[in-house]
Order: sequence, then C-alpha cells, then structure tokens
Amino acid sequence: MGLSSPAKAVPRLTKKQYTARLPALREELVQLQVQLKDAPFTVVLIVAGVAGSGRGDLLNTLGEWLDPRGVETFALQSPSEEERERPLMWRYWRNLPVRGRIGVFASSWYTETLHEQLHGGVKARAELDHELRRIRHFEKLLADDGTLVIKLWLNLSKKDQRTRLRALEADPDKAWRVTEEDWLAHQRYTPLARTAQRILDETDRPGARWTVVDALDERARNLRVGEIILRQFRAHLKKAQRLVAATGRPDRAPRALAPSGVRWLRATPLDQRLGEDDYERKREKWLGRLYRALRAAYEARRSVVFVFEGWDAAGKGGAIRRLASAIDVRFYRVVPIAKPTDEEKAHHYLWRFWRQIPRDGYVTIFDRSWYGRVLVERLEGFARPDEWRRAFGEISDFEEQLAEHGTIVLKFWMHISRDEQLRRFRAREDTAYKQHKINAEDWRNRRKWEAYEVAVGDMLALTDHPFARWHLVPANNKRHARLEILRTSCKVIEAALETKA
Amino acid sequence: MGLSSPAKAVPRLTKKQYTARLPALREELVQLQVQLKDAPFTVVLIVAGVAGSGRGDLLNTLGEWLDPRGVETFALQSPSEEERERPLMWRYWRNLPVRGRIGVFASSWYTETLHEQLHGGVKARAELDHELRRIRHFEKLLADDGTLVIKLWLNLSKKDQRTRLRALEADPDKAWRVTEEDWLAHQRYTPLARTAQRILDETDRPGARWTVVDALDERARNLRVGEIILRQFRAHLKKAQRLVAATGRPDRAPRALAPSGVRWLRATPLDQRLGEDDYERKREKWLGRLYRALRAAYEARRSVVFVFEGWDAAGKGGAIRRLASAIDVRFYRVVPIAKPTDEEKAHHYLWRFWRQIPRDGYVTIFDRSWYGRVLVERLEGFARPDEWRRAFGEISDFEEQLAEHGTIVLKFWMHISRDEQLRRFRAREDTAYKQHKINAEDWRNRRKWEAYEVAVGDMLALTDHPFARWHLVPANNKRHARLEILRTSCKVIEAALETKA
Repeated sequence: MGLSSPAKAVPRLTKKQYTARLPALREELVQLQVQLKDAPFTVVLIVAGVAGSGRGDLLNTLGEWLDPRGVETFALQSPSEEERERPLMWRYWRNLPVRGRIGVFASSWYTETLHEQLHGGVKARAELDHELRRIRHFEKLLADDGTLVIKLWLNLSKKDQRTRLRALEADPDKAWRVTEEDWLAHQRYTPLARTAQRILDETDRPGARWTVVDALDERARNLRVGEIILRQFRAHLKKAQRLVAATGRPDRAPRALAPSGVRWLRATPLDQRLGEDDYERKREKWLGRLYRALRAAYEARRSVVFVFEGWDAAGKGGAIRRLASAIDVRFYRVVPIAKPTDEEKAHHYLWRFWRQIPRDGYVTIFDRSWYGRVLVERLEGFARPDEWRRAFGEISDFEEQLAEHGTIVLKFWMHISRDEQLRRFRAREDTAYKQHKINAEDWRNRRKWEAYEVAVGDMLALTDHPFARWHLVPANNKRHARLEILRTSCKVIEAALETKA
Repeated sequence: MGLSSPAKAVPRLTKKQYTARLPALREELVQLQVQLKDAPFTVVLIVAGVAGSGRGDLLNTLGEWLDPRGVETFALQSPSEEERERPLMWRYWRNLPVRGRIGVFASSWYTETLHEQLHGGVKARAELDHELRRIRHFEKLLADDGTLVIKLWLNLSKKDQRTRLRALEADPDKAWRVTEEDWLAHQRYTPLARTAQRILDETDRPGARWTVVDALDERARNLRVGEIILRQFRAHLKKAQRLVAATGRPDRAPRALAPSGVRWLRATPLDQRLGEDDYERKREKWLGRLYRALRAAYEARRSVVFVFEGWDAAGKGGAIRRLASAIDVRFYRVVPIAKPTDEEKAHHYLWRFWRQIPRDGYVTIFDRSWYGRVLVERLEGFARPDEWRRAFGEISDFEEQLAEHGTIVLKFWMHISRDEQLRRFRAREDTAYKQHKINAEDWRNRRKWEAYEVAVGDMLALTDHPFARWHLVPANNKRHARLEILRTSCKVIEAALETKA
C-alpha cells in the first residue's frame, strides 16, 4: 500500500506487446459483464490518483472496453443546492447503480477530501478523522451488502509526474489537457502524497481494499487495471454465490438482544383518558405551537424527519393526518412505506429512504420506515440474521448522519394493548369503508404478537440515541396519543432550535 | 366555467346531513383506489382556488378519505437550484406518479402563474399566452397518454371570501391560519378573478376540464369534490378499458408520412475517404476546439444535449467515446437507452428522458433516445399508430422546451449503407470480444432495412427544426464520421453561444 516505497520496475509495454494482449483481456471483461448482469451485486469502481496519472485517459479506455449499457460513470459535478441541503453522503447514495451494473466513480467520496488538501485548506486532524470514519462506514455498508468495491490509486513519483506533465505540454495537440491545477499539485507533491498515504491507510479495509497502480507507462497501467478488475471480480463472484445460498428464515421464537426494550414496552401504562372537548381545545393550542416551531425550523434551515412505527391499527395514519394539518402543505411530504419497487429492491435496503430525505427546512413524514428491516424482515426471514443484526448499527449511523447535518429526527412507536388491537380489527371489519384496512396478513401478524414484542423491544433499546430518541406513545386512547405526538414534536423541535443555531 | 356567474344556491349541510352521506362516499372512494391499482393510467388531481377557500382543509380531508399508500401529494416547494437549472416543466415531470396511483397537486403548473398575478407582476400578455400554451400542451400530452386529469377550482365571491377569512380570524385557535397574503388577495379580488377566469378559459380543454366548486360551505364543498372525483374516475375507467383493447401491431410495410426524409437519406453520399495520419492530426485540432467550446458553454451556463441515433453497427459507441474524450469527465454523462425499467414503463414514455436532462452548463450524451418511439416502437407495434404519430409533435415540443431554456440540442443520425452494415456484422461475429455486440435481433432488424428507412426518413423530416436540427453523418468511413461529428458539434455550439448571451 506504500506510495513512497521504491517503485517496482514496471516494464514498459510497446504498442505491439499491448495490442497482442488486448483481445484476450477485452473478451474477458465482456464475459465479466455478461456474468455480472445476473449476479446479485453491484460493482463500484473508484479511480483516484495523482495529477498527470491519466485518470481521464484510463476512464476513456475502460469506456471502450466495457459495454456501456452495463456501466454508469459518475463524474460528480460540484454539489448542487439540493445536494448541499442534505447530508454529505446523499449525493453518493442517489448515484449508486443497481445490482448487476458497474458504477465507475471518476470522482467519489474521496474527491472533496483530496481537493481540499490540494488547495491548502488546513483541516483539523479531528475533522479529517471524522470524514475518514464516515467513508469507512459507508464502504463497509456497501461491502456488507455484497457490493464489490474496487479502489484504484494511480500513482507517479514526483519525477515521473513532471516527466508526464511536460510530455503532454510539449505536444501542441494535447497541451490543453494540462491545467494550472496539475502544476500546483506537482509543487505540493510531498504534502499531498503524505495525506494521500494517510487516507489510503485509514480506508484500506476488508471488502474495500486499495490497489496502487504505477501510472508511468500508459499501456502497462491500462492492462494492469483491466487485470485487477477481472481478478477481483472473479474472487467476488465465488463468494457471492456462497452468500446467496444462505438465505434468511423466519425467526419464529426470537430471543431479545437487549431485554430492556421489552421491559420499557411492557412498563408503559395505556389507561389514559381524554374527553373530546378537552382534546379539541388542547389540540388547537398545540397545533398552533407546532406550526410556529416548524416555521422557525424552516427559517433556521433545519429539516425535520418524522418516523411513525407502531402496532397494526395503532392509529399511525390518523396521527399523521393530524400532525400534517399543522404544517404548511408546501413544506412537508408523507412517504408511506410499502413493498419496495424493483428498482428499490435492486439497491441497498437504505437506498429508498435516502432518496426521500428532505431538503434543509422541509419535513418528511415516514409512515413506517427503515425499521422494517429489524421488524418484519427479521421475523419473516426477508433478511438474514447477519443482515438484520447489522441493521441496528447501520440505521443508527444513518440517523446520526441526518442529525449531524442538522436534521431533527423524531421517532414514534405507537403502542396499544393486544386487546385494543382486537377491538379495532373487529371494528374495521364491521365498517364498510374501513374493510380495506384489514386483511389476512394483519391477523397473521397479530398471532405473532410476542415475537414482534421482542423485535420492537430490541429496536427501541438498540436505536435510541441522543441524536434520535424513540418516543413511546401510549395509543389505546387515540386522542391522548395524537396530543402526545403534537406535544413531543413541539418540545423536541423547540429544544433542537435552541441548542444549535 | 364562469367564476362570476350568479352563484347557484349551494345548500349548506348540517353536520348530521354530512355525517349521513359520508360513509357511502368514503367506501366508494376506497373502491375507486382498489380499481385504480390495476388500471393502466394515472390520476392527476389539481386543487386550485381563491384565498380562504380552504384548499388545505380539503386536502387534509382527502388525505383522510383516501388510502395514503396509493396517493402522492405534491405540494411543490419553491423551485430548487436543480429545478431552476432545467426547463420549467422538469420539476413537474419528475413528480408525476406512476400508473395506478393518484397524484394530488396541492400546487401545480398553475401555481406560479397565479402567484405572480397576486404579487402584481405585470406580465406581458404574450408571455402569459406562452405559459398557457405550454400548460395546454403538457395537459394534452398527459391526457393523450391516458391520464385522468381532474382540475378543481375552489371559488368564493368577494363577499363570501371576507366572511370566511373573518370567521377564521375570530377563532383564536384558527387565527394563525390566515396570512397577510390572504388579505392581499382579498383586496385584489377583482383583477385576480379576471386573470383566473382567463387562465381557466384558456386551459379548459377536452381531457383536462376545470370544475368550479363553490367553497362557502366546507361540508358541501368536501362532498362535492368527492363526488366529482368519483364521477370523472368512473367515466375515465370505461374509456381506458376500450383503449387498452386497441393495442399496436407491427407496421411491416410502413408508408412515409414525409417522403422528403427518405430522399434526404438516399441522397447522402457515403464514399468519403480519410487517411489515419490526416485523421489523427485533424482530430486533435477539433478535440481541442470542442473542449474550448464546451468550456465556454459551461461558463455561459448553457447545457448541451447530444442525441446519437443510427443504423446498427453505424459506430455510435465509438463516436460517443471520441466525443466524450474532449469533455472534462466532471461535466458529462453518457446515457445508454435500452429497455425501460418497470418504473419507467409505468410512466409516460418521455418521462425517462426528462429524468436525464442536464443541469445548466452540463452535457448529456444519449446513446439512442426518445426517437425509439418513432423507430422501433413504430415498426414493432410497441406503440399504437395514434401514439407514434403523435410522438413527432410531442418530441418536437420537448426539444423546443429544452432550446427555450437555453439547452443546445445536437442530433446525429449515423448513416451507413446496407452493404457496409453486413461487412461490420460479419466482422463482429469473427472477433471474440465483439460477439456480444451482435445477436439475432440485429439480423432481424437488418431484414427490415426498407421499413426502417421509411421510419428514419419520417423522423428526419418531421423533427428537424431550427431549434433542434438533425445532422446526417455519412459513416461508412468511421474516421470521417467521427471527425464530422466533432466539427459539427463545434460549429453548432459556437454559433449558439454567439446568438444568445
């Protein structure tokens, strides 16, 4: 991994040698894409490197070798307002390719970090550490999802860099390819190399390894990159086939990972009462206050994410409608989470939620959410045990990123008793226009109440963090629950606005 | 449609009357959504109206009545930078729901027009006319695609408006709902009503009719809206079932709509020659010039859309790769067009292209494009005759919108002879790493050469406009073709930058 270790003697290739080896390589790359098409994973290829190492040339060559119908090249442009108004990683999430395809990242989550170094932005060590930790988490998440992450660093010694930049400049037809920035990078070669070495060391992890490629000879560089891609792909394909064999199974008698959650759930009293007049008076008061709090959040450019989870028939829909009535219709969006679409299924399970993250100042209300991963997917076996276990950390990380960006995250578990659920199910069956709200699956889920209790308990215990608290809402009494949600929302938003400007 | 015609006596409803009629209505609305789920169309519901007419209340009520899992509410926020950097209608395209779902537009393509009127922006009559024409085209396109477009205008007389605003203000819990803007709208009631009337008149067209709803009595308003939705949905469902029955058939011996196109194609000489040295020298020169032109376009915030169409094996891929090598990798994106995804299929055929429109200053290169509608879809019967015939106009309109926004549109038809194609097909079969580029379908298409010639001719003749010219590129000689594309691109971009600042 050393960038400064004495360069291995990289043999230069003549055009003839190159041309002789090319057809076989190209054929294998095409075969790779044919196999990838049906493979259950994505390939993410990151091409980074020093100035003058010919990243653009290499990318064009790859463009010639690969079938463009299976490739998406991401040369991320400077972040747009919509991107700046969301957590840093949002722009990468939105550009991840679907399974079976290759995403070539001509620039990536490393680009900005490297770019800042070039322009001498003195970054506190802690800040860089934080960025690198974020990158490690992201790449681990991709790798855990089965993504093949190939990271290439095109390297040149300082001397070779000068040689290449001068050669380009001497060619009147190619001189325009050399920019001032390239020469600036050359001047700052040593400190840049030091930072690059640190970044590579800190992000060279299982499932997301760096490969350093000597970039002095174009042809040798190209062939080597082709071979690296092939080798890593083949190894990965074998591993993936083993993984697919191990699918999930319904967890019929789940054991709690964190028993404090179930205790919390069971200790929650559900016998609240609230008269209609009392409710209506208080509701209008809190609606007005919430309206003002959200208005203030908008002005402070703080976005708000509401998450509604709860037992079937706990009243999520009704609570959301009441909550929404306090928000100017231009500022919020309700996102009901049902079965994922084909496109969503072909991505990491968090992708479809990242898609819906609001811009600064706006509100997204999730009617069910990413917690399906540790509830229904755990219990029905849609996720393997290693997958749903990992999800507690992934979800916490996701919410932490939201909070770090300034998003206020409000999570409600609407809690009713088993008897109350039965009463509501029956009422639904008896009311014509409510019959669509109840089906065989609801009754099936109801029979798994104890299992769900364990999963819910784990969720509450393992994903309750200072940056994204769970609010357990007693909901046997609908009026009480709706008011409780308004009240909690006000208080959390008001407190968040006070603590952070 | 008259807003100022003497109000029909709208009977007020007591709470009891309202409650009595509600269950039946709600059940029918739910049934509607169940039927819609499997229907081959989208519902677009626009709710507009005067200040104080209770649009927010109505939307919340609809939110309660409808199953939120089948509804997407679009309360478009102020346009983002990404939206402003694209043609006006882009933000609406990106928010159109898929078939089987209801899109409720709490604000819509009317909102900005109306809003500007409120704030007294004096708009030239011609400008408003242009906006209304754009809206008519868009709604016609939706309607032609089978979309049910329901447009509601919630109306109040000036007197009733004052009554409602005062009543809200008098209620301490609801006073916060009345804004200064509402009172401004009240003061300017008469001119606003005049403009609204004009907008309604000009956009009341078959397939996109306005319905004016008296909004004085909340309960009567709600019930009436529910009934309008039901009635229009039922009528539309019947019509849609008839349409689905009439699917397309392969057009085996197509007749030219515009014979000048085929003549153009046949009159194009294909015997150019260009030596390798000559080519390489000229290529570098034009690549450099194109790089500078695109750089200038970027600085002028002008985006560029390249469209590559051509016979199979005409060399689109190679030409695109050469072209791309002149563009900074951060500024362009190649979009290969293959079979649409499920999500794309569930939208209007132009939706997937609108998705890919570049931001100001950036470049998108389409490897095949929306012209598939009038080529393969026409000949294979994937589109009905009425659909592909309509497409010439729809596509022209689409490209005109791009051009009006400032996008430079460059369309290339890469033309080879039938013999040359045969030679290339055989060469592909003989080269191992090129075999994936040739399959049975290519040979099948080749047998339909004459049919394709007619379709291509129609395309060239009917969609060649000053704002988006077709460039017919002789491509029997690959080097000549690639150079021709570089040269044409330079000239068109340079000319566009001169004429419009």
